[in-house]
Amino acid sequence: MKAERFVVIGGDAAGMSAASLVKRRRPEIEVEAYEMGGYTSYGACGMPYYIGGEVPELDDLVVVRPEDFRNKRGIEVFMRHRVERIYPDRKLIEVRDLEGGTTREATYDRLLIATGARPIVPRGFDLDMEGVFALRGLDDADGIKRYIHDHGAKTALIVGTGYIGVEMAEALSMAGLEVTTVGRPPRVLPTFEEEIGQAVTEELTRHGVRVLIGAEAVGVERPSDGRLSLTLASGEALSADLIVVGAGVLPRSELAAEAGLALGFKKAIQVDRGQRTSDESIWAAGDCAEAYHRLLGRNTYVPLALHANRQGRIAGTNILGGKAEFPGILSTAVCKIFDLAAARTGLGLVEAEAEGLDVVKVVVTGNSRAHYYPGGGPVKTVLIVEKRGRKLWGAQMVGRDGVAHRINTWAAVLASGMSLEEIHGLDLAYAPPFSPVWDPVLVASEIAMKQVKEK
Amino acid sequence: MKAERFVVIGGDAAGMSAASLVKRRRPEIEVEAYEMGGYTSYGACGMPYYIGGEVPELDDLVVVRPEDFRNKRGIEVFMRHRVERIYPDRKLIEVRDLEGGTTREATYDRLLIATGARPIVPRGFDLDMEGVFALRGLDDADGIKRYIHDHGAKTALIVGTGYIGVEMAEALSMAGLEVTTVGRPPRVLPTFEEEIGQAVTEELTRHGVRVLIGAEAVGVERPSDGRLSLTLASGEALSADLIVVGAGVLPRSELAAEAGLALGFKKAIQVDRGQRTSDESIWAAGDCAEAYHRLLGRNTYVPLALHANRQGRIAGTNILGGKAEFPGILSTAVCKIFDLAAARTGLGLVEAEAEGLDVVKVVVTGNSRAHYYPGGGPVKTVLIVEKRGRKLWGAQMVGRDGVAHRINTWAAVLASGMSLEEIHGLDLAYAPPFSPVWDPVLVASEIAMKQVKEK
Repeated sequence: MKAERFVVIGGDAAGMSAASLVKRRRPEIEVEAYEMGGYTSYGACGMPYYIGGEVPELDDLVVVRPEDFRNKRGIEVFMRHRVERIYPDRKLIEVRDLEGGTTREATYDRLLIATGARPIVPRGFDLDMEGVFALRGLDDADGIKRYIHDHGAKTALIVGTGYIGVEMAEALSMAGLEVTTVGRPPRVLPTFEEEIGQAVTEELTRHGVRVLIGAEAVGVERPSDGRLSLTLASGEALSADLIVVGAGVLPRSELAAEAGLALGFKKAIQVDRGQRTSDESIWAAGDCAEAYHRLLGRNTYVPLALHANRQGRIAGTNILGGKAEFPGILSTAVCKIFDLAAARTGLGLVEAEAEGLDVVKVVVTGNSRAHYYPGGGPVKTVLIVEKRGRKLWGAQMVGRDGVAHRINTWAAVLASGMSLEEIHGLDLAYAPPFSPVWDPVLVASEIAMKQVKEK
Repeated sequence: MKAERFVVIGGDAAGMSAASLVKRRRPEIEVEAYEMGGYTSYGACGMPYYIGGEVPELDDLVVVRPEDFRNKRGIEVFMRHRVERIYPDRKLIEVRDLEGGTTREATYDRLLIATGARPIVPRGFDLDMEGVFALRGLDDADGIKRYIHDHGAKTALIVGTGYIGVEMAEALSMAGLEVTTVGRPPRVLPTFEEEIGQAVTEELTRHGVRVLIGAEAVGVERPSDGRLSLTLASGEALSADLIVVGAGVLPRSELAAEAGLALGFKKAIQVDRGQRTSDESIWAAGDCAEAYHRLLGRNTYVPLALHANRQGRIAGTNILGGKAEFPGILSTAVCKIFDLAAARTGLGLVEAEAEGLDVVKVVVTGNSRAHYYPGGGPVKTVLIVEKRGRKLWGAQMVGRDGVAHRINTWAAVLASGMSLEEIHGLDLAYAPPFSPVWDPVLVASEIAMKQVKEK
């Protein structure tokens, strides 16, 4: 680009991946990043493990510190600066220094919006109420841990039973609290099939977590006795010392909307496969932006860390005039729940049906290791298979052993478009400590072929 | 088939897979199997873990017992019966009852040879010598364990540093013996790249195993003092209470050769992709037969358990008139060495060069988990990449955490023919306890793209 100034809004994964790439490839470009909070480039996904105690220091989660971006990478990072407004026609942003209280303007030639996502806060909740938290960033992780310590918190309520909800249930249990999770959907991990959710519920329960599903939280109060009280739609009230809201996130796209940029799915910033927005000088990446789904063939919204990092790099490449394309997501994800791992890739049953696909669900249980080798256990696999042509659309797994990486084999075969027969013909690794002769991936594909044939 | 009688020679994986499939699908067919030894359908790969103590009972390794084949599956299994000769023109076999000592004839309409492999016994070795063993079958595993117990064996020598050699080194160490491994090749696990072999050597050494590479064992003696003495080509002599020969295997194909069947690579029985031999009424499967390699596009010899099971089923299907084709191998394998796993798929550097490919080796070290999550460690990946078009031909990994199943992602992408760029674009699962945001698979493919670009 002819551009002299590249400005990034948001100092986490997507933003700083782009900033680093641009500065590394073209050191003569001025690269500036504005971050509202106190941290850059941190592992947000690690917050539950800091709270649970597996990760001893909050700083351990930081990948690159602001001063290192400044001193080692030559990127001007402005911390605790909030961008208030974008003026695309003037290629200008208005920035507020949250500590100094002043507002100033800055120009850009090319701009990246990487403002991330914000937690969904249900009506009736006030994150300013003492003892009520959401996980927006490291400050919140810090706040939760301090609050537990300072107030001797013994009981916690978690609102939300998705990834964050179940990870926080584990974390707060590990931290010694008595935990209840409350979620509106009829099962935990509602983006997974019910067979997986059921196994996760059992694991939570086994570890003493109370699981309330189909229960809508409608408000929080703090009566005079000092304990928080959560009211459910049923009228029931639950009390606790601490409440964590982990009910999902939404794209932080207001700035883009106010600037007149097109929004897309779930009001995420609309982008093309090169991460460019509807304004030709503005790109967007990460949890504030849409993500192209390779099976659906269109944009959707799946705010996960790998996409943010990848989209940041792609935006950076294209900002420099490159032709990088986001390869697309498969909604691949994995989640640890105490000793269990739940993983998914591709479409779930409801998602596939919503696409008009005539699919069936195949549920298969296999062993994680040779039957005689200690430490193994059942791996449950759920496949979503289209009747016509027996095409695979999705795979999910749950088990105590050998789930997290097996899902990647499914992700690879989904991306390649392999048939079930081809999957069943794969030469996968075998040794008794790691798998049976017929790996659960092979067993599941075989059973799926048989079951779908019969229909 | 019109056939009334299907006869199987060999009662392990390949043979009994075929026998079971044929009898299940066509119960009216008479199915007979002849097994020289005392066990059917056992997990030979589990023998080191019985010797090492992880698997308490030898019977745990047996998947299906002879009486269950007889009573539950309707298959006539003749134990301790050795087939001495095949007469293809008369569709007849000659069988010797090893216990009764009698010989008789049996006819077949279709025949499967599944005689497996035999250990390579170097010159100068005598398996009848007390204290000298090879791992031919469960009887040997039993023999080794008994010998250690009965003779109070304290030291062991293992001849061979391939899969069996290193697994036995671990096993005998676990059983409390002081172990020395001796191998002629310049590194352990010679079918792996040297970076992997080096890591395995370090792990063996760390656990007190003495590793002698580039050392050819030329003979064993038992002097009058009763300890075994192993002589090396260098003239050095090593003594031990127990010697295990684990120097690889060769196809047991003499019966086929005597019957005039064509032999192929390494004298394995030549088969087409349907497992049919050069005689139209005879099939072969498992460790006695060739295996089609999907990258080489021709038959080779890789005696591993999954292939045997798969080939047995394919032979069974085709014996019934089906049209099943062996999908081919990638030489995928994984091996546990104490706390380490070493895994491979596809071609190694020397193999690829032997094919005339202009390849380079790319070595990349990544983390198995998020940097801050406990229990992770380095995963070393070695990729074999063709310069032209940056095509991937092979992948190997070694590490303490998260290697065994990651290799299957490489196996899947190799089978699919994905480019490095496509691999790097895969949506793989991320959660801090299981992987970094950029999984080692993604990191390795990225570094490979960069390195091969530069050349």
